[in-house]
Amino acid sequence: MTAEYRELYRDRAVMITGGLGFIGSNLARRLVELGADVLLVDSLIPDSGGNLFNIDGIADRVRVNVADIRQQTTMNHLVRDRDVIFSLAGQVSHIDSMRDPYTDLEINCRSQLTVLEACRNHNPKVKVVFAGTRQVYGRPDSLPVDESHLVRPTDVNGINKAAGENYHLVYNNVFGVSACSLRLTNVYGPRQLIKHDRQGFIGWFIRLAIQDQAIHIYGDGSQLRDFVYVDDAADAFLRAGASDACNGEVFNVGGDEPISHRDLTALLIKVAGRGSVKYVEWPASKKAIDIGSFYADSTKFKRTTGWTPAVSLADGLRRTVEFYRAHFSEYVPDEPEAERL
Amino acid sequence: MTAEYRELYRDRAVMITGGLGFIGSNLARRLVELGADVLLVDSLIPDSGGNLFNIDGIADRVRVNVADIRQQTTMNHLVRDRDVIFSLAGQVSHIDSMRDPYTDLEINCRSQLTVLEACRNHNPKVKVVFAGTRQVYGRPDSLPVDESHLVRPTDVNGINKAAGENYHLVYNNVFGVSACSLRLTNVYGPRQLIKHDRQGFIGWFIRLAIQDQAIHIYGDGSQLRDFVYVDDAADAFLRAGASDACNGEVFNVGGDEPISHRDLTALLIKVAGRGSVKYVEWPASKKAIDIGSFYADSTKFKRTTGWTPAVSLADGLRRTVEFYRAHFSEYVPDEPEAERL
Repeated sequence: MTAEYRELYRDRAVMITGGLGFIGSNLARRLVELGADVLLVDSLIPDSGGNLFNIDGIADRVRVNVADIRQQTTMNHLVRDRDVIFSLAGQVSHIDSMRDPYTDLEINCRSQLTVLEACRNHNPKVKVVFAGTRQVYGRPDSLPVDESHLVRPTDVNGINKAAGENYHLVYNNVFGVSACSLRLTNVYGPRQLIKHDRQGFIGWFIRLAIQDQAIHIYGDGSQLRDFVYVDDAADAFLRAGASDACNGEVFNVGGDEPISHRDLTALLIKVAGRGSVKYVEWPASKKAIDIGSFYADSTKFKRTTGWTPAVSLADGLRRTVEFYRAHFSEYVPDEPEAERL
Repeated sequence: MTAEYRELYRDRAVMITGGLGFIGSNLARRLVELGADVLLVDSLIPDSGGNLFNIDGIADRVRVNVADIRQQTTMNHLVRDRDVIFSLAGQVSHIDSMRDPYTDLEINCRSQLTVLEACRNHNPKVKVVFAGTRQVYGRPDSLPVDESHLVRPTDVNGINKAAGENYHLVYNNVFGVSACSLRLTNVYGPRQLIKHDRQGFIGWFIRLAIQDQAIHIYGDGSQLRDFVYVDDAADAFLRAGASDACNGEVFNVGGDEPISHRDLTALLIKVAGRGSVKYVEWPASKKAIDIGSFYADSTKFKRTTGWTPAVSLADGLRRTVEFYRAHFSEYVPDEPEAERL
């Protein structure tokens, strides 16, 4: 698959759930460039990632419908006449899922049925690409992790995301609603929520560096992660949405360069020109659901779609730091604009 | 572990959800014999398996509380002061889960959180044994299937059961609520629902044989299954409930003798002295979620608890046929008593 997957989106009716969120809004920018008819559905639940500033500059070229994917009749209406649905709405905090497992279940598990039932009954020819997560694997048996690894989540969020993913495969296989899942590792870049620290550590680290504060690393910082720049993640969604070969399959979508927390923060501080690191004890609530080192083998997705990450970690961090410096108050409204260096 | 696991239940406070159902009521009989304080919780949802006749003969030695596990406040109350909970309440029809995925989700997935949250907040020292299912494996990659096989369900029921099971492991690992899951294969025996054919084929086959009717086999009858007599299944629950080594683990609980549908029905017809077989085309709705041949490797559970199935298929079928002949109208109330041979 070469560049023609991009052509496919011209004049195509696309819907993105979680469309005002981090990955959703970056994907929307790409789709607008490609000439798609873009419908963004977002509940704008406070503190969950949706942010109207995320579509600054493209707001007049997309349609925004504020709605909650938990609402069956709303979804029944919205899925009609869409060619491709990118299912990115989700509750992404692992810690929140342990405090309030029901809300996580409603959003990550039950609502996936809501969208899929809407498709089954009102638009069965649609293609759905689900934003899965490497969290479903839990603590890996060996590294790198490919799709043959057991699904064995360590927290409620991972369980509900696994169920949500599995619904897509069953609806693909049984009801003919074309669907696949991308198991994303750590995605980072502009437009991520950095207001609080409950949605993954990378955005939070970037914020602390910009604010010249101490980044707290749990343990010795040796744990490995792989990172995907958000434009590369958006490209993965575009490719999956255009590929029939992806239907009924799950794919890891991870970065090429696993890196320790120690090296990551050193790079970030160098790129930002400020910030510091402090090593601290693991908080018990986080240690209990920690997965240790993780990095993904994305060979299956690369082979199927030709995808490959294009943005290096150093480049990606540079672009991200620049973005938040320019727009800090849009993402951290309660605090003063970060000093620009 | 020898016979002392039985001693452990004397005067112990036990709760069985789905306690008026098939496996639950047989387990209750064993617990009454062992001198346990037995609380049976059942919603008595019509057509779901709960049947007051199932406790005929022990009704004065158990406490029955009609309640739905979906009710959080009810569960908060009922779990208090229980030493062991056997979580057997479930929606067991694969076909129903595809027609009405939400009810299956509420019962098999969300309600497991309800019970576990009740334990976490009101009785964290309890031990919970969850009735899992081999359905979570989907179509096996190879046979026999052990616990290292991927979880890849082919229907909504299997997805929700997998999520329900995973909650138990996370609550064990993170919140200290001791829990494990038994992935049961085809359990058969007295007190199973045989009123309709949507809860597995084995009870339905037995009913048809007793009524001297034609048993319909889909395809050529070569598909393999393993069977567990309900007393052996009850013994598995007793052992798991008494074993700390089981905590945080999943176990296959299957039969020792895989057998084809063809040979199974021949044996059943011989045991019953009546009935016949008719080979028919697969209905599309069933073919779409069929898992092909399946039999489990239960080595892990045997090694951990000393369990081994004691009742052969021929013996088990004989006892089952005798039971339903004696009590047919209690299980198929709308039809005349089966002629006794």
